[in-house]
Amino acid sequence: MTWSSQEVRLAQRPAGRPDDSTWEIATTEVPDPGPGELVVRLELISLDPAMRGWLNDVRSYIPPVGIGEVMRAFAGGTVVASQHEDFAVGDTVTGTFGVREHALSDGRGVTKVDLDVAPLATWLGALGMPGMTAYFGLEDVGRAQPGETVLVSAAAGAVGSVVAQLALAKGCRVIGVAGGPDKVAWLRELGLHEVIDRRDGDLLRQVRRAAPDGVDVYFDNVGGELLDAALANLARGARIAICGAISTYNEERLPEGPRRYMSLLVFRATMQGFLVMDYLDRYPEGVAAISELIREGRLVATETTLDGGVAGFPQALLGLFDGVNTGKLLLAV
Amino acid sequence: MTWSSQEVRLAQRPAGRPDDSTWEIATTEVPDPGPGELVVRLELISLDPAMRGWLNDVRSYIPPVGIGEVMRAFAGGTVVASQHEDFAVGDTVTGTFGVREHALSDGRGVTKVDLDVAPLATWLGALGMPGMTAYFGLEDVGRAQPGETVLVSAAAGAVGSVVAQLALAKGCRVIGVAGGPDKVAWLRELGLHEVIDRRDGDLLRQVRRAAPDGVDVYFDNVGGELLDAALANLARGARIAICGAISTYNEERLPEGPRRYMSLLVFRATMQGFLVMDYLDRYPEGVAAISELIREGRLVATETTLDGGVAGFPQALLGLFDGVNTGKLLLAV
Repeated sequence: MTWSSQEVRLAQRPAGRPDDSTWEIATTEVPDPGPGELVVRLELISLDPAMRGWLNDVRSYIPPVGIGEVMRAFAGGTVVASQHEDFAVGDTVTGTFGVREHALSDGRGVTKVDLDVAPLATWLGALGMPGMTAYFGLEDVGRAQPGETVLVSAAAGAVGSVVAQLALAKGCRVIGVAGGPDKVAWLRELGLHEVIDRRDGDLLRQVRRAAPDGVDVYFDNVGGELLDAALANLARGARIAICGAISTYNEERLPEGPRRYMSLLVFRATMQGFLVMDYLDRYPEGVAAISELIREGRLVATETTLDGGVAGFPQALLGLFDGVNTGKLLLAV
Repeated sequence: MTWSSQEVRLAQRPAGRPDDSTWEIATTEVPDPGPGELVVRLELISLDPAMRGWLNDVRSYIPPVGIGEVMRAFAGGTVVASQHEDFAVGDTVTGTFGVREHALSDGRGVTKVDLDVAPLATWLGALGMPGMTAYFGLEDVGRAQPGETVLVSAAAGAVGSVVAQLALAKGCRVIGVAGGPDKVAWLRELGLHEVIDRRDGDLLRQVRRAAPDGVDVYFDNVGGELLDAALANLARGARIAICGAISTYNEERLPEGPRRYMSLLVFRATMQGFLVMDYLDRYPEGVAAISELIREGRLVATETTLDGGVAGFPQALLGLFDGVNTGKLLLAV
């Protein structure tokens, strides 16, 4: 037996914002699994800001997606055939399966998830890579302590919404930045102490007003003007966790850097970049911490799921950069 | 008795590079010390890049010099009168005495130095603030380990030349960056593994050639293009110690930031600012380490002393930004 599988391939590297010419949609046949292999019917595809970086032909922490290759993507689904001893038909799994309907896998990087703990969507969000990014970024890089002021950008997004709630649970004073009244209202409901609408402009002054004693931890998902606003308003000994810079990912040229980086000296502060993949062996710690908070009702795992199937991927990816999502953005296959 | 004392006052804040309109030179009378006071006849005035920052009316780690006030400066000299129990006539001392010929002091921040260990000039250089900046920046912020690759900018300067030699003594592979063939030749004599002449341009490629396996520690005194070149060539887990940004201090507008700061994420690297004043209580450790290396002949303390007296200060300060010095730049009173 084989499975017909629509897939999205990288047709050419985009300059700036991806468009239709970036992608090619094709259909292939996925064969029966051989020994040690399994076939997964994908149900949800994760849309992540990092995807934009994977399209650029530059030296980075991971090789770029090759021209003609299926677009790399984290995804989740159900095992429909298996000759792999760790996986049985009917198991729900996540892994880097790519933007496709069916995936043949040798099991490497594939994780079985427990739907009694949370639905698949949450395993791709608060209990998946974004949640782990939030947890280790806040704990290990930001080293947030109770009573400290934590500023988080893209606070209504997949990572930011978990950072904000983890910081609240720790007893921090939490300031979130998001775009638009709906997200601002949602973050206020979550209990954040201050919420800044980035569309109101003058971020430097807005951050100063929200953090008159300075920011101890800035969890940066966006870069750009907000990073400078944070730098200008640090507390002494502050830590900036560099998680991403989504505001700049579609720039055609290398964007300007943080002009106020010398604030690091004035405030004896640290700016540190990190990648969640370095914490793989500690995922159980992060999953335990976040699932406990979910169970206690102290952390709300939120996802926005777009329809459109695999062929809807090009549009869905742009939605990520336009901020259509509250919480984790997913594409239903 | 009183002492006639020429002094340099801040007349107006400079926009960009200081010029004659920045300063006013005046002569006052310094009175006999009262109880708990001393008078110091200054012999050497320290010229430091940080001075430029002290002229700007901005929130920083220290208040700016006020208009009409004597220019703040670290300096050294001989006690000529004392009613302070810790200091006797004839003692050689250093302190933040200002740009003047004679200073009345209450003894706060004044340190007696031992001329049997090193001459006064060295107590203002390798055994003074620049040396301590080098030591704690390399040890505590850069956390350089034997065998690691250390890149240091302004490597022929007061701080950089000590950083480079400390790193050599630790068993690091040391790459220095300096401006012009004389400094390059001097650094080669000191035993640096690679020396880059920044005037040769294309710093990104020069750093890549000198550090094909990446830079573990970048000790940054200059900012600007070299910081980006370092960011582009980091090793995984690299540490950048932000000590200064002399290349930008005379810019009229806030200069551009480091465009390649997202390399911090790619390389899981840290950029940390520091101020030597935070290590005051650990100075004895730094002085012991550096004086031991000097005694063993493994660290050469170098100073460039300009003539011209107090009135020569405006010109001498510009010399600092033009890189006239090898090692510590001093002004003879």
